[in-house]
Amino acid sequence: MTPITTSERKSLILFAHGARAASWSAPFERLRDATAARLPEVDVALAFLELMEPRLPAEVARLAADGIGAITIVPVFLGQGGHLLRDLPLLVEQLHRDHPAIAITVAGAVGEDPGVLEAMTRYCVGALV
Amino acid sequence: MTPITTSERKSLILFAHGARAASWSAPFERLRDATAARLPEVDVALAFLELMEPRLPAEVARLAADGIGAITIVPVFLGQGGHLLRDLPLLVEQLHRDHPAIAITVAGAVGEDPGVLEAMTRYCVGALV
Repeated sequence: MTPITTSERKSLILFAHGARAASWSAPFERLRDATAARLPEVDVALAFLELMEPRLPAEVARLAADGIGAITIVPVFLGQGGHLLRDLPLLVEQLHRDHPAIAITVAGAVGEDPGVLEAMTRYCVGALV
Repeated sequence: MTPITTSERKSLILFAHGARAASWSAPFERLRDATAARLPEVDVALAFLELMEPRLPAEVARLAADGIGAITIVPVFLGQGGHLLRDLPLLVEQLHRDHPAIAITVAGAVGEDPGVLEAMTRYCVGALV
């Protein structure tokens, strides 16, 4: 088995909104941990748009300093509003300028995934009192 | 089969944040449609906290006028921050006062459901480039 060299190392950043209440991040932390457990060779991180740390630019800077070669950003948002249509593209544009050697890809929002929709549907159906 | 009388009729309200961009509500509308398809005898509705219509109080008033006897509110939020810890309880307290004859139950947030976490994890793992 060929060892993974620095520039081939990959990262997955789960990108969430952030909130004032510290309790808000709990499900995102569980998602990060569950994802990291299935991708042992990948640096799986959580980063926020606002109100919580780390913010996306700081997290990408950390990964760049660590020698990561490729980053996939997954927006952990249900709906695609101004944050994903406007704020995230501007952030990613700046990240490309600041870290030209890193391949940065943005995935679709989790809320657009049919598997997530199916799981949410099951939950809603089961929630009926 | 006993026909369902007015006061036994149930509603499920999917409660979401709302956003300025009209495109934001698309996954919530798909969730409402998928849930409604599996609960043909239940009035499945979508209501918002802010920025989009209908708001929760207006939707409950509509259902009350329609003779609904019980409402389950499902917060379609991933994290539990101020909106679910503070805003929603205040709204529900007022709903109980305005509609004392309706049984109103609030379910846990979709982001707390293990099935939703599993689906999001699969999506994140599969998103890695």
